[in-house]
Amino acid sequence: MANTDSLRVRVFSLNCWGIRYVSKHTPQRYDMIGELLSKEEYDIVLLQEVWSEKDYLSLKKKLAFCHPHSHHFKSGVIGSGLAIFSKHRIHDTFLYRYSLNGYPYMVQHGDWFGGKAVGMAVLKLGGLTANVYVTHLHAEYSRDKDSYLPHRVVQAWELQQFVRHTSAAADVVILGGDLNMHPQDLGSRLLMSYTGLRDSYLESAEFDGCEDGMTLIADNPFIGKGSMGPLEKGIRIDYILFKGSSERDVHCDFMSTTKGSAPDHPFPYSDHEALTAALRGPRLLQKTSCDCIMTAELVDIVTEARTEVKVGLHCAERMRYTAARTGAMGLALLFLELAIAAVPWLALGAAQPFPRTSFYLLAALCVAILFTTALLYVFYSAELKSLQGAEDQMRLAVGSLQEELRGFPVAQPHGAQRGALGPEE
Amino acid sequence: MANTDSLRVRVFSLNCWGIRYVSKHTPQRYDMIGELLSKEEYDIVLLQEVWSEKDYLSLKKKLAFCHPHSHHFKSGVIGSGLAIFSKHRIHDTFLYRYSLNGYPYMVQHGDWFGGKAVGMAVLKLGGLTANVYVTHLHAEYSRDKDSYLPHRVVQAWELQQFVRHTSAAADVVILGGDLNMHPQDLGSRLLMSYTGLRDSYLESAEFDGCEDGMTLIADNPFIGKGSMGPLEKGIRIDYILFKGSSERDVHCDFMSTTKGSAPDHPFPYSDHEALTAALRGPRLLQKTSCDCIMTAELVDIVTEARTEVKVGLHCAERMRYTAARTGAMGLALLFLELAIAAVPWLALGAAQPFPRTSFYLLAALCVAILFTTALLYVFYSAELKSLQGAEDQMRLAVGSLQEELRGFPVAQPHGAQRGALGPEE
Repeated sequence: MANTDSLRVRVFSLNCWGIRYVSKHTPQRYDMIGELLSKEEYDIVLLQEVWSEKDYLSLKKKLAFCHPHSHHFKSGVIGSGLAIFSKHRIHDTFLYRYSLNGYPYMVQHGDWFGGKAVGMAVLKLGGLTANVYVTHLHAEYSRDKDSYLPHRVVQAWELQQFVRHTSAAADVVILGGDLNMHPQDLGSRLLMSYTGLRDSYLESAEFDGCEDGMTLIADNPFIGKGSMGPLEKGIRIDYILFKGSSERDVHCDFMSTTKGSAPDHPFPYSDHEALTAALRGPRLLQKTSCDCIMTAELVDIVTEARTEVKVGLHCAERMRYTAARTGAMGLALLFLELAIAAVPWLALGAAQPFPRTSFYLLAALCVAILFTTALLYVFYSAELKSLQGAEDQMRLAVGSLQEELRGFPVAQPHGAQRGALGPEE
Repeated sequence: MANTDSLRVRVFSLNCWGIRYVSKHTPQRYDMIGELLSKEEYDIVLLQEVWSEKDYLSLKKKLAFCHPHSHHFKSGVIGSGLAIFSKHRIHDTFLYRYSLNGYPYMVQHGDWFGGKAVGMAVLKLGGLTANVYVTHLHAEYSRDKDSYLPHRVVQAWELQQFVRHTSAAADVVILGGDLNMHPQDLGSRLLMSYTGLRDSYLESAEFDGCEDGMTLIADNPFIGKGSMGPLEKGIRIDYILFKGSSERDVHCDFMSTTKGSAPDHPFPYSDHEALTAALRGPRLLQKTSCDCIMTAELVDIVTEARTEVKVGLHCAERMRYTAARTGAMGLALLFLELAIAAVPWLALGAAQPFPRTSFYLLAALCVAILFTTALLYVFYSAELKSLQGAEDQMRLAVGSLQEELRGFPVAQPHGAQRGALGPEE
């Protein structure tokens, strides 16, 4: 670690809404984004929903002069949509694909096909090692009845594990992306408390942008009126998070978001607002109480997450049971049909009373039911395994945290500039 | 990191061949394994192919006194099969599931359903932090015509990435498992060169076990005669690997394998041989030339891996094309059939010459083809994305290594006690 190196880095993050033939004005918006990035020359650009390889390559070409280093993370059926552009050389990359990510038959939501993941890039900023993460979690389609909540909580759990375990050698950690979680949501608390990452909106000395730092606002012309539900004005679900190392601190000098429009253009860059953060550091760490994490609080958060995962477990068990029962009924129906058809065939010479059309249609239906339920059974079994795995890991984590708590007569603040309770300490 | 702490740790690794109702004498063998582990009281026990949760729980119960800490890693449809038992408290766990792992329709091989992965557990051994990894890669069913080679190379690539990026804070790194790769195979070289992990068989001061350290031997009664092919006596595919940190070194004092039989029992513990390694350390590192890795050699290995992944890419592209073409033919056949049937229906009153039985059978066949090829298309698309992702990361790694090489007038030895070229340096 270089002692004398100082860091001044400008980070940009945007969910590009780049679904070809579905998103509005995609080519024009990519042109606008390319133009903005060429002009602003951010150090690090973290993009989400760059679904098309062609769009990535055209951006890469356009940004070759100002951002010679880039990487497009691939996963799932149509890719992870994650891309990073950098002024500084990317020395290493690594991708972690979340074990749970919605359902393949929810084609209208499409998250499953995207293979949601967290991508990591290792950069050298001067003499400092920076681990830069870009991610995009499963969308929330209904706040009141969010059937994907257990999946998103497991994604947040895996995200904190990945950041915590891979960032021990880093001097600076930066995470940007569309977390699809509000600041006070369980997953956000889990991520921030466990990793010690800090929110640039809350930490910034100066802010310019939408009210309350919102990144999905009703004023954006691409947002359907009324789609915000009771949160009329908008929500904050995109973030730039950061932290230094255990010895050195990083600060956020300035943070901004776009405000639902792009200067000199008829429409904004995307349906999400773009985020920019100017980070500065590192300086020798002055441990203050506000930097500390209460182990007891973390126990509560992980316990809450465990409860949510258990809800998901029950739901997945019920779905698997339904699939098995429907499959068994399909099989029984098929046997019944064959038995009915076999009776006149066994009583030689008797005429077949079963109309052929009905016979074949019914048989085809039975086979289709059997095949579909078998696939669903396999899918739900894998979902169950992932949920059980996360629940096991959370139980172990709570045990380990409680063990630590027993060491304190009173729950004490717990130095936490970096992933507070992991092996990095 | 504690300066004065010393480490003496005995590690055990075994592929348990625990497929319920398929593997021979499974309950008796688990009893034997439990007995052995209770008697020997190894510090760390790394098991693979513990497919059944029930078998894991019964082992856990049996080992509660000598190994109070344990974890069963869950993934895929039937689990990862990976388990760890430890004398020392497990503080944290993390699972990385490989992005590629065979094909779901190769049901007879079954690897896909297993969700092959690498599990990590963080232990405190005295004052030292030990990162312990257990893994099991995709099996090799034919050495001459190994259609899973690209998948296994990508697994080895992801394994080295995972170990390298998560072990920066560890004083000791231990990896045990069934790698399904011979010592000189591309994947083994990739793993060892990149991470700096050392092979306990090669490094041990003393060895007792099968000739050449073999772990799958023809003399084992569970191995089908002749299944070894040209490698008559056996192969070495199970390993215990280890390394210290950049400051401190770890040594292997003793290593052993079982020899195709278990004392006082009619059959051995498994179809694989069990491995035991006694590790000692850490002591202050004396850098010697044999500890160093040549960056140039690593460039060659990664380039070779990239070539293998490209072969896999071509193969997956061909398979996806075949699925698409077959699907298109199914669709064309369905339209043709509907057209033929529609002709007499349009010419009102004309008799239907298309026999009903044939009509329905053909229609069902077309629909089945369409559905199956659509699923295969989706699967191959995801496989392609993963292969492309690995290839991209390898290209970037070669670039980064070459950049580093340009720094040396002649390729120079390169300090490598820990993951030689990653961000840990």
